[in-house]
Amino acid sequence: MLAEMPGYGPKSAQRAAFHLLSGEHARLKTLIAALTEADRRLHRCPHCNTFCESDVCDVCADEGRDRTMLCVVESVADQLALDASLAWPGLYFVLAGRLAPIDDVGPEEIGLPRFIERVAEGVAKDGLREVVVATSYTPEGDATAYYLIDALKKRWPDLRVTRLARGLPSGLEIEYTDLSTIAGAVYSRREA
Amino acid sequence: MLAEMPGYGPKSAQRAAFHLLSGEHARLKTLIAALTEADRRLHRCPHCNTFCESDVCDVCADEGRDRTMLCVVESVADQLALDASLAWPGLYFVLAGRLAPIDDVGPEEIGLPRFIERVAEGVAKDGLREVVVATSYTPEGDATAYYLIDALKKRWPDLRVTRLARGLPSGLEIEYTDLSTIAGAVYSRREA
Repeated sequence: MLAEMPGYGPKSAQRAAFHLLSGEHARLKTLIAALTEADRRLHRCPHCNTFCESDVCDVCADEGRDRTMLCVVESVADQLALDASLAWPGLYFVLAGRLAPIDDVGPEEIGLPRFIERVAEGVAKDGLREVVVATSYTPEGDATAYYLIDALKKRWPDLRVTRLARGLPSGLEIEYTDLSTIAGAVYSRREA
Repeated sequence: MLAEMPGYGPKSAQRAAFHLLSGEHARLKTLIAALTEADRRLHRCPHCNTFCESDVCDVCADEGRDRTMLCVVESVADQLALDASLAWPGLYFVLAGRLAPIDDVGPEEIGLPRFIERVAEGVAKDGLREVVVATSYTPEGDATAYYLIDALKKRWPDLRVTRLARGLPSGLEIEYTDLSTIAGAVYSRREA
């Protein structure tokens, strides 16, 4: 089992197992207790599908959030990164990954039906007016974005559907930036 | 002299010198001839300050370019990268680097007066309506951008002044992107 953890192979898994078993600090018991506690306390937020301990996650429960804006992401890690940037005033919806037809991961597997329900709820109850499709600019992220955008536009032609800007990241020189990124930075340029 | 070339130190310069002198292909003579030729033929375009062989560079001479749009960059390398992206339909102006007060590189040193003249010419003759400040999102690139934007807005309050979008580069996962880049990608998001 340990060998299937991200970043582990057979060797590092064996090293981790021996580390846990070399018991001066009762490491194994502590880890078992922590995992059991996590299993007992954590579940998925019924609104946005992120991990939380309360009935509804802190973001969805926050009255200060703009309920007319929804950001759809591929993973809880992406949601945390976006929220840490303090740039997004609205709510989130966390998909179960991204489309990967080669691995038989289709719209059902990533939770598209639940996402469409969530948008329908938002439109009906909260006057939802914008959905940001926040997937990465990778081949699978792009494919997922196109699929989601198409699904949204077909159902709600008047909904504003956006994507995160492709552009220059902080710290990277233009000279060393790939051409598709530069083109994105030109197309999404902003008033200074 | 070789030791002062970018990417060279004393050791690699010595290696390069011996390489040039080990003469089966008359390397040294070929290099001297190439450099002499470059010195003789290349000069700065009087309009945009890039390197060129003709009186006016190919971009400035191109009648198909939109003369109402000007993109100001830090270096010829940045200009080439931007132009290779095929995203910019207008003209360019190449500064002599970026502001670096610590190294005594101020507005005069990077050619600000010449740039202001060029913008004034554009406004008067070509109906220039937008200047994109295309500096990198590095501390010095930012400082240079703020200085240029301020200089432009003071002189031409009605000119559209923009900056390249800060955003997600192609291929990078949101999860691994720094927060200022994510925030930029949210602020510059586009209609899908």
